[in-house]
Amino acid sequence: MRLLEEKILSEGIGIGTEIIKLDSFLNHKVDVGLTARIGEEFARIFEGSGANKVLTVEASGIPAALATALAMGNLPLLFAKKSAPNTMLDGAFSAPVKSFTKGTLATVRVSKAFLGKEDRVLIIDDFLATGEAAIGLLDLVRQAGARCVGFGAVVEKEWQGGAARLRDLGYRVESLAVIASITDGKIIFKRNGC
Amino acid sequence: MRLLEEKILSEGIGIGTEIIKLDSFLNHKVDVGLTARIGEEFARIFEGSGANKVLTVEASGIPAALATALAMGNLPLLFAKKSAPNTMLDGAFSAPVKSFTKGTLATVRVSKAFLGKEDRVLIIDDFLATGEAAIGLLDLVRQAGARCVGFGAVVEKEWQGGAARLRDLGYRVESLAVIASITDGKIIFKRNGC
Repeated sequence: MRLLEEKILSEGIGIGTEIIKLDSFLNHKVDVGLTARIGEEFARIFEGSGANKVLTVEASGIPAALATALAMGNLPLLFAKKSAPNTMLDGAFSAPVKSFTKGTLATVRVSKAFLGKEDRVLIIDDFLATGEAAIGLLDLVRQAGARCVGFGAVVEKEWQGGAARLRDLGYRVESLAVIASITDGKIIFKRNGC
Repeated sequence: MRLLEEKILSEGIGIGTEIIKLDSFLNHKVDVGLTARIGEEFARIFEGSGANKVLTVEASGIPAALATALAMGNLPLLFAKKSAPNTMLDGAFSAPVKSFTKGTLATVRVSKAFLGKEDRVLIIDDFLATGEAAIGLLDLVRQAGARCVGFGAVVEKEWQGGAARLRDLGYRVESLAVIASITDGKIIFKRNGC
């Protein structure tokens, strides 16, 4: 997605060889117009997938996932929680997830009331890195007896292997910007090398 | 907002006298069409407020805040974080916030790069209860030298005093549904008593 790649080049900051800071438009301050375009792009890509629910994980996956659900005709959005609020009374599916950027181990949870075997789930997240978060969300889908129709990432860090890992498991993965490497702070995209 | 009140009455679950569970459409599973309408309603209410940025706090404030920013012509959205990611390098404004429903103490943070004295900030959140989260966000706005033009809550629990507390401080508060009390699980709205 050209508009997104341009934004990454103009505002993204590569840190070392592993981290890219996109907090000026993606996961802290949010460029709302770009987010709407991201949602429309995912809706175009996953048209015909049969998705009836969008799943993400709090917090920074929510903007892109909401925009996608809007663009797909107001599909229900479900965001997995990393803590167990005292209003989650009816039981939850849960799975462990290691955060690459925070270095912490979290548990993601969704209420059993909101994910079931009738669901065809499109998973959307801001980053796809090692795939830990995606694997955790897929575990929730599997526990519910639901089916995952695809995984959409706004930004994929290809060299960290998450997309390959998910494809090896048989899932469809679509990333709007695929970064091949970060070298001396320079961000190299996979397809066009710009 | 009639549509919201009807949704609260049909799907909300009062727990004891203090907690209302709205996770089937507001803060876990999200009714995306209703969220868009919520954003449009806030945009209508705060038209002319001069807001140039929408501020909320992760995670469950994000859907309504994003929908509001969209409906106000793609204003930038800033969501305060409750943890300090290793990409937040440039310094942050921070303030303590006690969570009513989780019983925990958190610190909310925004990067100093994204909030400044030129900003006229509309704060949007899903719940307004004791006002702790709002006071924390206002503290961030004050530290930045910015100005808060108003506070919009999707659901206000009036008896917990947050709205009165904010109005006493001189702020404009607009809630789309104002709950006066929860009695024996029955949800009583302020204005129409339904």
